[in-house]
Parts: sequence; C-alpha cells; structure tokens
Amino acid sequence: MDQSDPLRDVRDLFDLPADIIYLDGNSLGPAPKAVFAEIEKTAKTEWANDLIRSWNSADWFKLVEQYGDKLAKILGADTGEVVICDSTSINLYKALYGGLSLRPDRAVIVAETNSFPTDLYITEGVAASRSDVKIRLEKEDEDNIEDLIDEDVAVVLVNHVDYRSGKIRDMPALTKIAHDAGAIIIWDLCHSAGILPVDLNGAKADLAVGCTYKYLNGGPGSPAYIFAAKRHIEAIGQPLSGWWGHANPFAFDVSYQKDRGIRKFLCGTQPILSLRALKSGLEIYEKLDMRAVRTKSMTMTDMFIDLVDNSCGEFGIAIYSPREASKRAGQVALTFEHGYAVAQALIEQGVIGDFRAPNILRYGFSPLYNTYGEVCTAAASLNRIMKDRLWDQERFHKRLTVT
Amino acid sequence: MDQSDPLRDVRDLFDLPADIIYLDGNSLGPAPKAVFAEIEKTAKTEWANDLIRSWNSADWFKLVEQYGDKLAKILGADTGEVVICDSTSINLYKALYGGLSLRPDRAVIVAETNSFPTDLYITEGVAASRSDVKIRLEKEDEDNIEDLIDEDVAVVLVNHVDYRSGKIRDMPALTKIAHDAGAIIIWDLCHSAGILPVDLNGAKADLAVGCTYKYLNGGPGSPAYIFAAKRHIEAIGQPLSGWWGHANPFAFDVSYQKDRGIRKFLCGTQPILSLRALKSGLEIYEKLDMRAVRTKSMTMTDMFIDLVDNSCGEFGIAIYSPREASKRAGQVALTFEHGYAVAQALIEQGVIGDFRAPNILRYGFSPLYNTYGEVCTAAASLNRIMKDRLWDQERFHKRLTVT
Repeated sequence: MDQSDPLRDVRDLFDLPADIIYLDGNSLGPAPKAVFAEIEKTAKTEWANDLIRSWNSADWFKLVEQYGDKLAKILGADTGEVVICDSTSINLYKALYGGLSLRPDRAVIVAETNSFPTDLYITEGVAASRSDVKIRLEKEDEDNIEDLIDEDVAVVLVNHVDYRSGKIRDMPALTKIAHDAGAIIIWDLCHSAGILPVDLNGAKADLAVGCTYKYLNGGPGSPAYIFAAKRHIEAIGQPLSGWWGHANPFAFDVSYQKDRGIRKFLCGTQPILSLRALKSGLEIYEKLDMRAVRTKSMTMTDMFIDLVDNSCGEFGIAIYSPREASKRAGQVALTFEHGYAVAQALIEQGVIGDFRAPNILRYGFSPLYNTYGEVCTAAASLNRIMKDRLWDQERFHKRLTVT
Repeated sequence: MDQSDPLRDVRDLFDLPADIIYLDGNSLGPAPKAVFAEIEKTAKTEWANDLIRSWNSADWFKLVEQYGDKLAKILGADTGEVVICDSTSINLYKALYGGLSLRPDRAVIVAETNSFPTDLYITEGVAASRSDVKIRLEKEDEDNIEDLIDEDVAVVLVNHVDYRSGKIRDMPALTKIAHDAGAIIIWDLCHSAGILPVDLNGAKADLAVGCTYKYLNGGPGSPAYIFAAKRHIEAIGQPLSGWWGHANPFAFDVSYQKDRGIRKFLCGTQPILSLRALKSGLEIYEKLDMRAVRTKSMTMTDMFIDLVDNSCGEFGIAIYSPREASKRAGQVALTFEHGYAVAQALIEQGVIGDFRAPNILRYGFSPLYNTYGEVCTAAASLNRIMKDRLWDQERFHKRLTVT
C-alpha cells in the first residue's frame, strides 16, 4: 500500500526523527525540511542585515495577508477573506464580538460543551465583558445543537472536528440551520484544516478561526488565522482595535479607523520569525490534491481501528472515534481506564500520540508523512503493551505538566 | 570617548551590518550574535527532533514566565509579576479591562492624545465593548494630565516615554497623583524598557505593558509583556480568558478558572520560535549596569543635539526632543518641513533612522551597540544633506508603505 500511495513522496518533504512513529501531528505538526533555510534567512538576512528595512523589502507587513491567501485555498475561501494573526483564542474573541456586531438585536451565543475548552473560556470572557450576552450550551454528548438555535441566537460557535473523538460536524447543514434562524455561525477549524477538504464558501460559512501548528505544520505556536466571508467584511467590527487593523496605520492618527478589508481583524505587531516559519508548511499544500489526502486519511484511520479492534479489544481498549470513516477526521481516539499510562508506555516504544482527560488516547494520522507501515507498527506496539500489561508500571503513571 | 566607554565590549555581542550606522533600535533592535544558535536549536532540536515532547523537555510552556522573570529585573519588578505574551496592543486591552475590574464603581479612562496611537485605539475598543466607559484625553502638548485625574477615574493609561519626542514622564510622581485620586495607573514601557532604569515597584505602579523588539532586541514582532503588581494579581480579571490563562489548562475543564498568578494574563498558545529568540536579548542585560547604560545614553543624545544645533540649525532643522538630558530617553527627534525626504536621504548615506508623521525624524541611540563615533558621523551626514540640499530630489519624496 505504501508503494502505491500517490502521496508517498510527500513524506520526504518533512524532517522526521528516525527512531519514532509520530502520531501527534494533530497536536504539533513536524518540521518541513524547507523551513530551516526559511528561518535562517529571516534571522540572518531580514532581521540582522536588513533590519528595519525588511518591513518593506521583505514584505513583513504583508505576510499576514500573503499567507492568509495561501491558506484560503486550503479552506475553500477567497483571496482577502483570511488573515494570519495572534492565537486561536484571541481570534475567537474577535470572531464572537464580530458575530455579535452583525446581529445587534440579539445576544445569545450557542456553543458546545464538547468544544475544545478555550472556545468556551473565551465565550465566558465575552459574556463577562458584555453583561447582555447569554450562553446556551449543547450538553455533553447530547448532539442536539440544532434544537438550541432559535431567533434569539446571535452567534453559533462550533468545532468543525471534535478535538477528542475526531468526529466531523456537517458544515453545510449546520450553517443552513443557523442561517434559517438568522444567526451567524463561527467554525473552529483547528482539527480540520489541512486534513479534510474544507469548503467554507461552499457551505456559506460566516466566520472561522483556527491554528496552523497542527496539520498545517507551521511550527510550535505559529500564528493562527481568522476567516470572514466577503459579504460581512465591510460591516463587521471587533474590539481588539490595535494599530495593525487601522485603515492607515502609518498615518499615526489619534482616532481608530478600521481597515475596510480583512486586516481589520489585526491588532498588534505579529511575531515575524514564527510567521515566516509557517510558509513552508503552507507551500506543501500547493502541490497536494486534498481528495487524495482525504482518501488516504480515511484508509489509514480505518486500518488502525480494525487493527485495534482485533488485537486490543479483548484488553478493554474501546474505539471512541466514529466508526464510519466519513464522519471522522484525521485522528483515532481510544478509551481505556488507564489511558494515560498506556499513552506513556507507547511513547517509550517510540509511538508518539497524546492523552486527553479523563481517559482518551489520541492518535493522529497525517497522509502527508505517515505510512501504512507505521499504522501497523503502532497497532502492534499497542497490542504488546496491552497483552503484556507493560503499561502497569509506576513510571507510566507519573503525570507530566503538559500531556 | 569610545575607548574609555565602560560599555564598549557590549557592541561585540551584536551582529551589525558593516556598512550602516543603525539609529533605529527604538523601532527594531539588531540581532544579538547568540540568537542564531538559539533559533536553530529551537527549530532543529526542539521542534523537528523532539516535537511534542518539547512542551515538557524544553520548558516551552514555562518560557513565558521564565523570560518574564528575566525581564522583571530590567523593569524593577519582582519574580512572578511579569509574563511574556501576545502583542503590546493585546496586552493593553487586558490591562485596561484589568484596571477597570479593580475599580468596579468607576468607568473613566484617562489617556494622552500624544500617546502611541495603538493605546488610544485599544482604549476606543474597550469603550466600544463597554458602553459605560468614558475616555478623557489629555490634549496634544497641553501637558496637564494631572488635572484630568479625579475620583471618577478608574484607569490612567500613559506612555512612560513619548514615542516621537522621547520625553520621559515622571513615573513615581504621576503614579502618586493617580493613587491619590483612587485610580489605577498603566504604564506603557515600549520606549523606556531597556534604555532607562525603570523601577515599577519603586514607583508603586499598578500595571504595565510593553514590547520587546526595540531596545530589548528580541527580534521582529517578538512577543510583548504585561506586568501586574503582586498586590493586584489575586483580584484582577481580564476578558481574554483563553486556556493558557486557566488555573489547570490540561485538565480541559468546561468552565474557566483563572490562574491565581501572573499566568492569568495569558490567553492562547504563544509563538515559540519568536519567544525563544527573545532570550538572547534579555541575557545581554544580565551583565549590564543600567546606570552606565543611562549615563552613556544621555551623553550620546546630548552630543547629537549639540552637533545638530551647531551644524544644521541654520538650515531649519529643529530639536523636537527635550533639551534637558534627564527628561529625555534614548532618541533624539528633529523636525523639518521635508523631514521624510531628509530621512530617506540619510538612509541612502547609510544612517538608518525613521520618520513619524507629520514632520518628525527620529534617531535612536543605543548605549549597547552605538558608538560616539557613529553619533559624529551621523551628524556630519545630516549636515552634508542639509548644506547641499541633497534631500531635494524626487526619489526621496516617494513614500514607502511602512515608514
């Protein structure tokens, strides 16, 4: 299967450690080989040698849009609809206020308990700073968000892919439900961009946010992004109105005049080294067919589920992700009472995945660099750990700060 | 003077282009030589090789505090009072809301028209999102901010050093005036940290923000910082309540529970490459005596003012910075009707400064790497440009995007 994989040459574009199987690209993607020269050039030529002149000569000020336009193609968005900046959490705040600004006569935000927590925390932050805002939460595993969307709802904030189970939400269908009720919908794409074909404009999405350090391989903490559909850009506002979002930042006006385009979502100066590093990851996608990425992704996760079912089911490991490939994104989540210890034992065997409380093991498979051979080896390692109870050792139970 | 300069060896810690005199470190500091190895290690070892494990093994999650503690020493703050994160603009938003949270019965923010504009824009953003907030502005050049501070004022937001003139505000005196009226004061340190001895706790300051890419030499767009005095940290709140500010972010709780320490000012994931690059600049300060830095700074700027007065005054160049060295930070600002063209002509002669609308030329002198010889050469170049009207050529009038 690896020999006939149409994506087999893509792996060679990444710098992967020789001794491990990396199944955590859904948390931090590996380094593209091209990125080291990019970073060195940014540090030595643009910063050290050209210094302040690089704001013009190296386009530093425009990278947020240039890379936003590259990313737009991966998200099914148009030129001028995506800008790279800040963190996902910060962009969620802008998107929530932005959505509220488009529906001034409403003040309910619908969100999901199953959301990646920062989405909820930021929603709480918006509600704490705007006393009229009310939050309506879809309860854990109730799967009835459509019942919560009525004509009081200003904004619906949902994760395109569940960060634990990998379950995909139907973007066109839920967007339509939100629109039928007159609400604005915000899609959090952290776990879908780069692993699924995403079609924001096809679904008529209003706003979206996401990070670039997972499947997009932008580097640790690489800047996030925000998307706004063109039809909303002129009217929308957001309160993080820093000088980079000003219509004419270098006029140094006393009053804020928001940019008329996507730059209105910018706030302050962006971290250029981390921003530049994102380029190499985005450029890999320029040569990729996302349908081929999706086909391989489904095959790999199907294969891992089958192998785990057959070789580890008897030891109490259960599949937490949807079993139907079309409902599942790039990761397979498993549950086990001592999941943390199993994850640690597997890491010791060179299979890097991660753990999410209370008992979920997550294994992310990237069609860009993972092989079918790795899927088999990972499942075989898990089988050995379970069969011989290798996880049941004290050192595997000691929690690290960051899991 | 250069031979007897006690800081003469510090210049050798920087990678400076051979062909220019760099007088724009008040906008973007040059690269410390040590930074290239730091960046390469972060990219190749921490990211590419160690991957997700670096959150623990390379302390990625804790760098924001570790570097915050290094920076605290430069700011006259204590351990646990400074955290590195986001941009100055974003941190201004947190600080303003934070200040308002400490004075719930008040809603006036006092700020300065002469402020760096983003401070005003963010203040507008806070007022736009909180309808009770009123802004009271010190008018341009009125210099009467103390008259605006009364018992309706929740927060006073001021720049420690004026970004155009370089004029220093008296931090202990204005802090006392704010406190006497029961207000919270926020100091923007962008143009003072690293060039002046700053003593936040000596002045009993409440909150402060600033960037790290000017005199601190952290690299283009390196993350900013926020300071909160220990006495305020427990009570203070801010609405950008992302998961990095949670008391236990890896518990993935559904509800936000703010961290009890300085991490409560964090929001989302930080850009690790840009964050790491900051280390080398901060470490240079560990060996420096800030009094020696200040002495050299005053001597250099006095010297430049004298030379410009004597050799360029007759051509209409005026000194915009305070003439008294004790009232002036690291830059000398000049005014001239055709200031933009003069700045460009000087750049062509290898003297890099910058321009701020409408007619201000700014020359920043860093005692860490600038020499007295450079001060003389820069003034001589300016004299030649003025005497021979070299600025009066069409190409020098063509505005660049970023000036």
